[in-house]
Amino acid sequence: MAFSPLVDELVESLRVLPGVGQKTAQRMAFHLLERARSGGSRLGDALGRAMYGVRRCDCCQNFADTDVCGICENPERNTGVLCVVESPSDLLAIEQAGDYRAGYFVLMGHLSPIDGIGPEQIGIDRLVHRVRDEGVTELILATNPTVEGEATAHYIADRLADNNVLITRLAHGIPVGGELGYVDGFTLTHAFRGRKPLAG
Amino acid sequence: MAFSPLVDELVESLRVLPGVGQKTAQRMAFHLLERARSGGSRLGDALGRAMYGVRRCDCCQNFADTDVCGICENPERNTGVLCVVESPSDLLAIEQAGDYRAGYFVLMGHLSPIDGIGPEQIGIDRLVHRVRDEGVTELILATNPTVEGEATAHYIADRLADNNVLITRLAHGIPVGGELGYVDGFTLTHAFRGRKPLAG
Repeated sequence: MAFSPLVDELVESLRVLPGVGQKTAQRMAFHLLERARSGGSRLGDALGRAMYGVRRCDCCQNFADTDVCGICENPERNTGVLCVVESPSDLLAIEQAGDYRAGYFVLMGHLSPIDGIGPEQIGIDRLVHRVRDEGVTELILATNPTVEGEATAHYIADRLADNNVLITRLAHGIPVGGELGYVDGFTLTHAFRGRKPLAG
Repeated sequence: MAFSPLVDELVESLRVLPGVGQKTAQRMAFHLLERARSGGSRLGDALGRAMYGVRRCDCCQNFADTDVCGICENPERNTGVLCVVESPSDLLAIEQAGDYRAGYFVLMGHLSPIDGIGPEQIGIDRLVHRVRDEGVTELILATNPTVEGEATAHYIADRLADNNVLITRLAHGIPVGGELGYVDGFTLTHAFRGRKPLAG
């Protein structure tokens, strides 16, 4: 763009966002400049603060502003149960469902030897120590139902096999409200195998 | 989100971007925090600078860092021809086509009485003065081929009817590389009416 180096710089910088190419970045920049300058400034400030200030919780590895996050500090939560998830967005989905009221451990990824991501990179040693030291009685492995997620879950289960802890995995089955005709074969097979007697 | 007010603030602020809802904002925030902190900081700085520093060119109304933009200041451009566009992205598309080497006037919108946008709001008085004072010989009306764009073009043409200036409108027709079978009826009608003898 010949007309403004500042606009050029803004468009180029917006491309750091996931899924944002040149055209979308342009549209975003023009939208902010034309119609949302105060919102744009607020976003700039929020980015500066978050990129500098957000760290990882010492306890569960999740994003936090302080040494220990609000969930780990909450005295009302059951500390005997830990749910292992791959990312903060998974944790958020579980929190929004609202039923689970115990602790978490956020791997921030999954095992992927080909990318050089081993147990140390995702904090599995720390998880094992936590399970042993804090007297955790149940570890719920809520990694994604993908090849890497399953492998990560199995690795964690193996590492903790000799400890006196119940290790569980989230149930597979038909999504609530889903239509049978649209459910894939693997899920249906899991749903059949995991069928339960109807409470009378 | 219970775990970090800074992350909450970032997600909320990202929603100012066009087409970005809660889920996308979350995905963007986590992406920046996990994988692109330096890019995120750079974006924060660029936003701050652009929201504060970008103004409108005194001459063509386009976004500029200085009083007069690079295009208006360029002595190699023909000042006798002005192209009127609705937005900076339209100007950019014309500049990227590369053939047009004269001046612009950016309305930053179109006439829309129902939204309270009249001739003053989009600078038509300023345009009329510029055409009269600067001895413009041709005014190319490149507003969008929509109802509002056409109305805006006709209004400008009416205002300048008594001046000695050639007023033109961009040609309608089949897009280059387009297939006839996919072209809509209005465009085809325009293409037939605007047909030209084949240069032998």
